[in-house]
Amino acid sequence: MLIDALQCGEFDRSVFETLSRGGYTCVTPTLGFWEGTLESMDALARWRDMERENADLIRIIRRADDIRACEADGKVGILLGYQNTNLLEDRIRFIELFADMGTRVMQLTYNNQNELGGSCYEDNDSGLSRFGREVVQEMARVGVVVDCSHTGDLTTLHAIEHSPKPIAVTHANASSIFPHKRNRSDAVLKALAETGGVIGCAAYRNITPADACATVRGFAEMVARTVEIAGVDHVGIGTDYSYKNDDNFREWMRKGRWTRTVQYGAGSVRTPGAVAKPDWLPGPENLKDLVPALRGVGFSAEETDKIMGGNWLRLYETVFG
Amino acid sequence: MLIDALQCGEFDRSVFETLSRGGYTCVTPTLGFWEGTLESMDALARWRDMERENADLIRIIRRADDIRACEADGKVGILLGYQNTNLLEDRIRFIELFADMGTRVMQLTYNNQNELGGSCYEDNDSGLSRFGREVVQEMARVGVVVDCSHTGDLTTLHAIEHSPKPIAVTHANASSIFPHKRNRSDAVLKALAETGGVIGCAAYRNITPADACATVRGFAEMVARTVEIAGVDHVGIGTDYSYKNDDNFREWMRKGRWTRTVQYGAGSVRTPGAVAKPDWLPGPENLKDLVPALRGVGFSAEETDKIMGGNWLRLYETVFG
Repeated sequence: MLIDALQCGEFDRSVFETLSRGGYTCVTPTLGFWEGTLESMDALARWRDMERENADLIRIIRRADDIRACEADGKVGILLGYQNTNLLEDRIRFIELFADMGTRVMQLTYNNQNELGGSCYEDNDSGLSRFGREVVQEMARVGVVVDCSHTGDLTTLHAIEHSPKPIAVTHANASSIFPHKRNRSDAVLKALAETGGVIGCAAYRNITPADACATVRGFAEMVARTVEIAGVDHVGIGTDYSYKNDDNFREWMRKGRWTRTVQYGAGSVRTPGAVAKPDWLPGPENLKDLVPALRGVGFSAEETDKIMGGNWLRLYETVFG
Repeated sequence: MLIDALQCGEFDRSVFETLSRGGYTCVTPTLGFWEGTLESMDALARWRDMERENADLIRIIRRADDIRACEADGKVGILLGYQNTNLLEDRIRFIELFADMGTRVMQLTYNNQNELGGSCYEDNDSGLSRFGREVVQEMARVGVVVDCSHTGDLTTLHAIEHSPKPIAVTHANASSIFPHKRNRSDAVLKALAETGGVIGCAAYRNITPADACATVRGFAEMVARTVEIAGVDHVGIGTDYSYKNDDNFREWMRKGRWTRTVQYGAGSVRTPGAVAKPDWLPGPENLKDLVPALRGVGFSAEETDKIMGGNWLRLYETVFG
């Protein structure tokens, strides 16, 4: 069982072949950042085409059982998710419709404040709005994972409080380990864990300690420190691995259509562009090297299974129902 | 078994109570005429709400088995359909997504020519366009009924020719019985029947003979003449019954957003406004009076069952798969 709760960039057959070689059971690609309803449906439609064209390699995941099927037959499960809620165009009722079309994960906010709540990059995190509260309730009702990876700490705490089901931080690290706006506080991680949620440790250089990028043992040690905060049942992997992350793609992620100014996203004026992949993760197929590394820092086989995918599967089972 | 393949106007609990009293097994309401993707999804979402709020009375039909369930427990089946394809916003891939959201019927064109083909009201019926050919193939693949009730005769013939599955004219009459642009030629009805399709006889005064509006026996006689053209396995009912058909609603149906001029739709300069319901069909609950009337004009019990719903059920089973 190997589940990566967040990747992004362009997927194609060569990526699926790599994920298959890498032993992935399930991965969540990013279907959108800023797109409205129609463009978000276009993205869903492209994944339908890709599934038909690569039916020997992938399976779109509609329920948790489909992940078990992937474990059994070796296909790579694709759990469809968006990193924003612009796709709703302010309609509570579209959550159910997007779920029907196969959407299983929605991040409440991307890099900007929206109708639901505050982003980690805003000066003031508003917390969850009235609409935001309704959205997390509705997502729980219809079985869509609430993701708060780019959401501000206060909004994340509110989402944990208002969601009737456990929520996710699919791709971030602990800010007590690596201080960065994109990482979540210990208070958030503890509240997340207390309600059955899961954080996916990220392997994205801008938000991950140098040691955890240098060696897989370093990453395993960061995972162990995260487990000390949240507990071994509440930590998984969400690499934030990106395919074909070129200038245009990065520009779209960071600027969408909302600004004419330079935006660095998780980068900075000193690291404005592409950052190198972690040294131990040049390709996604290297993620499986984390298994022996986790054993090497003291996790049992059972604990390692939880971190590598079991915790995500439990969350998905709980949320999808 | 009582199936009405087309009604329109506003549905609410009082309508559902009437349909329930009237013994309806399944009815297709009209979710849209001119609306694009978002508004069409709003309409779907409203039906989800209505189903939850009236779960004791109605069931949204997703597969033909659901109609059998309605027959068993007495709920009114709601088969979701649109009278146009504007909801696709030119995307072949949205057919599959709308089907996932519960759409089971789409009319290729409403009163105007569109990207798919020609309407019955255009001076020249283009026939089915290249996009139109792809749409009927895709609708067959994903299990959506192709409806050609307002579609021109040539475009209808092309749709019959290019569809791998039988198609429907859900609400029209034979133009050889009542000459009107909205009614279909004998050539169309024969081609429809040869490929397993069904025509739903309409009870809308603008397109229905006076005799068939005056008495239920007159309507049964019109059905019998239609059966002489298309055969007893290919004729059903599609009343075109409208609820709360006020001036604003009629204006929207006829003019959408495409014109500043007066439009009469199926009416005329002599009958520009609302027309009276057929004398024998003041309310939808009277439709069941057609059963004895069909027996009275010579149909057997088995034939009457086919006309009152069995033929539609067979078509739905074939199309939904």
